[in-house]
Amino acid sequence: MRSEFELIDDFVRRFGRARGELLLGAGDDAALLRPGRGEELVLTVDALVEGVHFTRDFTPEEVGHKALAVNLSDLAAMGARPVAFLCALAFPPGWTPKLPGIARGMSKLARGCGVQLAGGNMTRARQLSITITAIGAVPRGQALQRDGARVGDLLVVSGELGGAAAGLGRSASPQVRRRQRRPTPRLGLGMAARGLAHAAIDISDGLAADLGHLLGASGVGAHLQPEQIPIAPGAALKDALTGGEDYELLLAVPPRKLPALARLAGCPLTQIGAVVRGRGISGLPGKLPRGFQHFR
Amino acid sequence: MRSEFELIDDFVRRFGRARGELLLGAGDDAALLRPGRGEELVLTVDALVEGVHFTRDFTPEEVGHKALAVNLSDLAAMGARPVAFLCALAFPPGWTPKLPGIARGMSKLARGCGVQLAGGNMTRARQLSITITAIGAVPRGQALQRDGARVGDLLVVSGELGGAAAGLGRSASPQVRRRQRRPTPRLGLGMAARGLAHAAIDISDGLAADLGHLLGASGVGAHLQPEQIPIAPGAALKDALTGGEDYELLLAVPPRKLPALARLAGCPLTQIGAVVRGRGISGLPGKLPRGFQHFR
Repeated sequence: MRSEFELIDDFVRRFGRARGELLLGAGDDAALLRPGRGEELVLTVDALVEGVHFTRDFTPEEVGHKALAVNLSDLAAMGARPVAFLCALAFPPGWTPKLPGIARGMSKLARGCGVQLAGGNMTRARQLSITITAIGAVPRGQALQRDGARVGDLLVVSGELGGAAAGLGRSASPQVRRRQRRPTPRLGLGMAARGLAHAAIDISDGLAADLGHLLGASGVGAHLQPEQIPIAPGAALKDALTGGEDYELLLAVPPRKLPALARLAGCPLTQIGAVVRGRGISGLPGKLPRGFQHFR
Repeated sequence: MRSEFELIDDFVRRFGRARGELLLGAGDDAALLRPGRGEELVLTVDALVEGVHFTRDFTPEEVGHKALAVNLSDLAAMGARPVAFLCALAFPPGWTPKLPGIARGMSKLARGCGVQLAGGNMTRARQLSITITAIGAVPRGQALQRDGARVGDLLVVSGELGGAAAGLGRSASPQVRRRQRRPTPRLGLGMAARGLAHAAIDISDGLAADLGHLLGASGVGAHLQPEQIPIAPGAALKDALTGGEDYELLLAVPPRKLPALARLAGCPLTQIGAVVRGRGISGLPGKLPRGFQHFR
């Protein structure tokens, strides 16, 4: 049986040597990062657990891709430039032959996004889990937060919603399944939204729940136009509102800034409503079920 | 049943509000950290898994303490000042009532070491695991690494070794068990060793394996004096060499710097050998078993 050290070496090798602001990558007790002048660091952690966040019919590449993508999506929601990440893997022996595939899916996305592996950990467990901590950078004071939405802001979303939920269906087409398995973090949009959007959040729990988080943090309400919500092919409004895992961005943008944002976004943006006085969400038909919860 | 959001709120509340260089803690998509002027950041991740790194008879406080301590130990080995950490928890429902105890053990150590919670994640799983990413800071160019040991350096260790292995025994006294369950990260020693030690590593896999890592990275060998190795009460030489989990520091120090280091260390230091030309470790009786491996 291969040792822990050999497995780690194999995994790490796929990500290349530390360069630029990452002075030292995996291999010592810790990694070393030299922050850019005038930049603040953005830190987030998210785990993918077998049977909870992905099923046995995900390919190892898809698992690796998704584990990193959901973390990069949090960086995007803060307007951050992705810098580095750390990856903790826990797995039963049966997953050992699939580690190269996981590394491949992860490293392909990492290269595409310019984010470096800064360290990792491997341990035995009864169930595969991948816990990733992502580190990004933003110019001082320019991070997007949830709590900045103001009355009069327009609510816009990137891409289409509900596709990830639809992609869980057994009869989903490969294109629809891709929305569940290969989410694309909206990093370009997040960076473009600095100085333009008042608030941002990524849609991981479903539009209704994540809009609720943004409104609650900002102390405002929203009026939605459900007919405007961009629904992914094969999905229903319910999928968009409560399905979760789309990893699109929801932004609160002052009307005069929207044209500039649309020009810089690099992806479709749709206005779905506006921020209003008060609390909660109006304009939706009926009572909403709660958004995606890992504990439900 | 309590929601994911309520459980997270409860956990996070024990750690207090973000302050100082941590501009924004848990609660948004990500945390925000303003690095100190002229400082580099040190990043490390380590996981504790139920049944692998701790047993059912650990108290929740001990689990929380150890999960953070093993990560702070990696910061200590780099000479870093601890700054912040992120905590990903995966657990079956049965652990839910024990989360406050885990948070208590973790927050007590965090406060004692001046390290803040910067974010977290909770998810369901079949087995408890706690994955912590720790972030520290060092003045530019002053991080301790594994690869700086030079021929003629003295090898010194902090505290006593083998206690963690001895603490696994069923008949271990409470004092001996404490070595296994409540390791003390040697943060003061790590910071004191900046500019004095040529190389450092924390002893997590056992003295033989970790010394091997340090020697391999530095391209040198070592002559050990086994009779000098400080053995913890209740432990044997074998525990010290291969038991692992002591979380003491092993340092390579030029002889003329040792008096200054001993003065600043804040803990006992023992010289156990010296760095020599060549490869491998001489002076030990017989052939060494391999150090602690999670995969063995």
